[in-house]
Amino acid sequence: MAALRASKLNTSFKLWHVFEIKERDAAGRICRLETPHGTITTPTVLPVINPSSMPISPEEIRKMGAQAVITNSYIIYKNENFRKIAMENGVHKLINFSGPIMTDSGSFQIYMYGADISPLEIVEFQRDIGSDIGTILDLFSLNATKHRAIDEVSETIKRARASVSLKKKMMLACTVQGGTYPDLREKCAREMGKLNADVHPIGGVVPLMEQQRYRELAEIIIASKKGLPPSRPVHLFGAGHPMVFPMAVALGCDMFDSAAYIKYASDGRMIFPDGTAKLDEMEELPCSCRVCSSYKVKELREMEEKERTAKLAYHNLYQMFAEMRRIREAIRGGWLWELVERRAASHPALMDAMEVLKKEKKWLERWEPISKKRAFMYTGRYSMHRPTIYRLHKRLLERFSFRYPDSVILKEKGKPYSRYYKNLKGRKANFVVDSSIGFIPIELEEMYPIAQSVFPIKIDEEGKRIVRTFNKKFEGKIPGIVGMGEIKNEKGDFDLQKIMAVADMQFGKGAGKALFDGDIKIIKSRKTGKIRNVYCDGKHVVSMRATDGFFTLKAAGAKLLHELFKAPKLRVVVEDDAVPFIGEGKNVFAKFVIECDDELRPYDEALIVDSKDELIAVGQCRMNREEMLSFESGMAAKTRESIT
Amino acid sequence: MAALRASKLNTSFKLWHVFEIKERDAAGRICRLETPHGTITTPTVLPVINPSSMPISPEEIRKMGAQAVITNSYIIYKNENFRKIAMENGVHKLINFSGPIMTDSGSFQIYMYGADISPLEIVEFQRDIGSDIGTILDLFSLNATKHRAIDEVSETIKRARASVSLKKKMMLACTVQGGTYPDLREKCAREMGKLNADVHPIGGVVPLMEQQRYRELAEIIIASKKGLPPSRPVHLFGAGHPMVFPMAVALGCDMFDSAAYIKYASDGRMIFPDGTAKLDEMEELPCSCRVCSSYKVKELREMEEKERTAKLAYHNLYQMFAEMRRIREAIRGGWLWELVERRAASHPALMDAMEVLKKEKKWLERWEPISKKRAFMYTGRYSMHRPTIYRLHKRLLERFSFRYPDSVILKEKGKPYSRYYKNLKGRKANFVVDSSIGFIPIELEEMYPIAQSVFPIKIDEEGKRIVRTFNKKFEGKIPGIVGMGEIKNEKGDFDLQKIMAVADMQFGKGAGKALFDGDIKIIKSRKTGKIRNVYCDGKHVVSMRATDGFFTLKAAGAKLLHELFKAPKLRVVVEDDAVPFIGEGKNVFAKFVIECDDELRPYDEALIVDSKDELIAVGQCRMNREEMLSFESGMAAKTRESIT
Repeated sequence: MAALRASKLNTSFKLWHVFEIKERDAAGRICRLETPHGTITTPTVLPVINPSSMPISPEEIRKMGAQAVITNSYIIYKNENFRKIAMENGVHKLINFSGPIMTDSGSFQIYMYGADISPLEIVEFQRDIGSDIGTILDLFSLNATKHRAIDEVSETIKRARASVSLKKKMMLACTVQGGTYPDLREKCAREMGKLNADVHPIGGVVPLMEQQRYRELAEIIIASKKGLPPSRPVHLFGAGHPMVFPMAVALGCDMFDSAAYIKYASDGRMIFPDGTAKLDEMEELPCSCRVCSSYKVKELREMEEKERTAKLAYHNLYQMFAEMRRIREAIRGGWLWELVERRAASHPALMDAMEVLKKEKKWLERWEPISKKRAFMYTGRYSMHRPTIYRLHKRLLERFSFRYPDSVILKEKGKPYSRYYKNLKGRKANFVVDSSIGFIPIELEEMYPIAQSVFPIKIDEEGKRIVRTFNKKFEGKIPGIVGMGEIKNEKGDFDLQKIMAVADMQFGKGAGKALFDGDIKIIKSRKTGKIRNVYCDGKHVVSMRATDGFFTLKAAGAKLLHELFKAPKLRVVVEDDAVPFIGEGKNVFAKFVIECDDELRPYDEALIVDSKDELIAVGQCRMNREEMLSFESGMAAKTRESIT
Repeated sequence: MAALRASKLNTSFKLWHVFEIKERDAAGRICRLETPHGTITTPTVLPVINPSSMPISPEEIRKMGAQAVITNSYIIYKNENFRKIAMENGVHKLINFSGPIMTDSGSFQIYMYGADISPLEIVEFQRDIGSDIGTILDLFSLNATKHRAIDEVSETIKRARASVSLKKKMMLACTVQGGTYPDLREKCAREMGKLNADVHPIGGVVPLMEQQRYRELAEIIIASKKGLPPSRPVHLFGAGHPMVFPMAVALGCDMFDSAAYIKYASDGRMIFPDGTAKLDEMEELPCSCRVCSSYKVKELREMEEKERTAKLAYHNLYQMFAEMRRIREAIRGGWLWELVERRAASHPALMDAMEVLKKEKKWLERWEPISKKRAFMYTGRYSMHRPTIYRLHKRLLERFSFRYPDSVILKEKGKPYSRYYKNLKGRKANFVVDSSIGFIPIELEEMYPIAQSVFPIKIDEEGKRIVRTFNKKFEGKIPGIVGMGEIKNEKGDFDLQKIMAVADMQFGKGAGKALFDGDIKIIKSRKTGKIRNVYCDGKHVVSMRATDGFFTLKAAGAKLLHELFKAPKLRVVVEDDAVPFIGEGKNVFAKFVIECDDELRPYDEALIVDSKDELIAVGQCRMNREEMLSFESGMAAKTRESIT
């Protein structure tokens, strides 16, 4: 197992800061990031502070919701007075902000006007003025040929490598570059990921965002994320318009920074989550923030320019922070895809980006939780492309087995299906419901997202096509489709059929047979009539969750699956040192994980084993394999029961 | 023409209040409604005030954005103390509100608990306590059989008829009922429209909204609107969740009332334009209103219930008022359909309602302005169903004529089309661009929405089908489709081709020939190179608007079209009394219009004629025919030039 452990990325150096996942949805996550000046909850946006002009003070911005700010070290360096104060008293005193400060290196300014400081000097300068997170001086490839972009990426990596040795206690942001070439971005990201870096900005994307080239932006984010270790915070450099926040977060971006709040304000423009509006073109303010509920358009227009700019900047900040809170709420509630899809309707260029996401289902599925707190809400033509549907169809094709020789296709009348087909319950035939999400065997009715989904009467044609394609494949597996009149009036055991089917879908083909091979006793809720606990030969093997219809695996069940499935299936392998702790019921922390089944997904049930594949506990994953092997902190799996 | 004039609906009685359209989009409008206690700008929402419990005072609600409030006269009547105060000092004193007060008659309470006041007494009571807008005591048909609903509608109409004679100076709201039977709603609306009523609530829809039966709600609104005169304000009774506001406004609802702000608040629920969230299920507040930017979730939860309810009620009101301002801004900016479509993504039940709208294109097209301030933004699968696209396809099929025997189909490379096909400009062949909205002859490139539209790279399948269906029909009209190599290298006159085509599309087939039959001189903008003014035989016949590519018709052009087209085409016929004023350049007010071309749409150019079809002026419509014949106030057409 030594080889496996070496595959962990961060073992060659100790990161002194902590970055850990607290909640997750889509490929997005809520994380805790510790910095020398305090902890940040990501995703978050860092307002850009220009030390020469602070119409709203950083501390005031903090009160409005900023957890950290970003300022430009090159501007400080170039101004003798600023430099002196920063060197003597630190950057926190210079801009009078006590929270975490990230500094930019001035790559853009130097790109535009030429350098008068070396790439390593500016890193040292950032460190010396006490920046919490400094940034390397990268080269950014704007409209570069691929050849040139390759050279610039090499140089940027070289600088990053040299810079990490200088950082000391400063956290260092090593920027991913590579122009609009996804392969180059991924390669650059992979190299950067090998370094002792703390944050990875995705750089050189401001021109794309200004031109609303969101399709390319999405490609770049995905390529960068594929190359980077998932344990690194990813910062989308210069992304300050909330229009891109939901999608970028869903793809795994953690940090944003924005000068837009003030730039737009000084141009008389107001930011909204779905676009921008000019004060001069409005008659009323379609917003309820403190500014918009205190002033009328006319009053703002008639203000002195400086005052108006400040007011609009307040509004813009309120909007940005509110959208970030909304995104975090969406992650917690499991409706981030809904938010992304709704926001896509704000601009056709965002729809172009959605086309990129459609092609990345396989990658997106790896990060997608297996169930959510809230129902799957259809929003339109992107909904059927969600990883949840992709996974459902895949598992149905790969894992589901039919029980009887005859099958009947039923109409979808309501949920759960069997309530609308009471007389069929348990008759000896396969009942398959022709639902909005495709053919669904009736016994899976309670599994997320089957029961937990809401569709309009008519779904879009593209969604229908996805369903048709799946149905065609699945229909080939349905045995003997007959009319209702042709099936025998014999009673089968619907409950047994249900638990067998759920087990196979959740754990893999054959799981049902292994778990329920004996004298089965099913305990149901008196209130709802739903299956609660399943005993086999007197042993409690699984419980069924009322909320999502999935099983919680019990120790007895875990043993059976451990016997049935060969490693690495369903396994999370932990270091031998951690075994005693987990045996006592402690949770599995990522740093102790040395291997993991590549098929496990967040919130999947898992078998916790030691390096000799001895079963030591059963638990529920909080991460997928890449994450378990990459993260140094945070919970990899929640231990449910240790095996005694 | 006497018969025509009698067709005007309101001539048998004089309405003392004013209700007039100021701005419009879709079938929605911004209107000014005068009441005894002040003017209201619709669409607007009236918060419900319960005199027994006012956690937020009406005057405070007014400061937050309420233009008027609604209270329940039956509750006042039933409480001896309230009744006494209201009878002695008026309802305004009772609830201490100086703005317009609408009163409800307690239909719901009486439906639930039985009546102890007669239908006419409650109207008199409302009048006597000084309500600005009183409401008849209607019967509302909840889940009634059609037979019963018919009876209840008859009784409601009978009561309305009796009530109008009692109203005196009070405005009276005569409620449209008819259950979920659209034909009955339309019939009831037609009868109510004949009465001397001032406002028409659409009643009995609260249960539908509570159950999110938005499809039926849309059917009911449309049926009611079809039956009512367009000059009457329409109030959607009990619609207090902003989720339904954009669609209801787009269908022509002007007023809303809401107890939801307080009901939801006391239940710990927070209203958002796209749904509702429970305080108990949130960790952060995804909003930037005064409440949400002042408190954290935890603080709100820990408040005393009464205080928390008030805070949440504030939040709910802020959201409602902000959404109303957003809707009004959308009407002003011409992006109401975009807002409706985006909001539809909030809930599948709203999508079900969109299916109803798809079937009502023909009706919706009648109210749709011919061009807008902003570009047509595609939002998803409903966009291609918009009346603008329906009209464009219809006019292309009915009005467009090809000039040359050979035609070439071009790819859409960018806008305006000819900029990307410079070498083709004016070559003697028909160039047809295969665009996102269908086959478009290149010479129409500047007309709204052709140049003024934004699409994603890939549109939805349903939209594609609409385009395919149109293309199939239009292709049949395209003469001799050949390859690029097969066309002659002869130069035609692209500018002439353009003005001919635009004239036909805008005014009707043959207009181009009539307007430009002579020595043509085209003046272009020096800056943009766009066509500005067109002279024929030295006379200025039309100007082309840079913003939307439509013509402004000049006096000389109007004369030519007046000769070409027989009445009623393009005509707005005014009373003889009004002729001298219009001759002086005064605008055409609705009350003077006695007939109008049924094909004219808002912002269409029109020929203003007298009853003998003498041309007296040229102008731009602000209304369609139904509106011109129904409204007693407001501008029917803006006079551009009088004919001398």
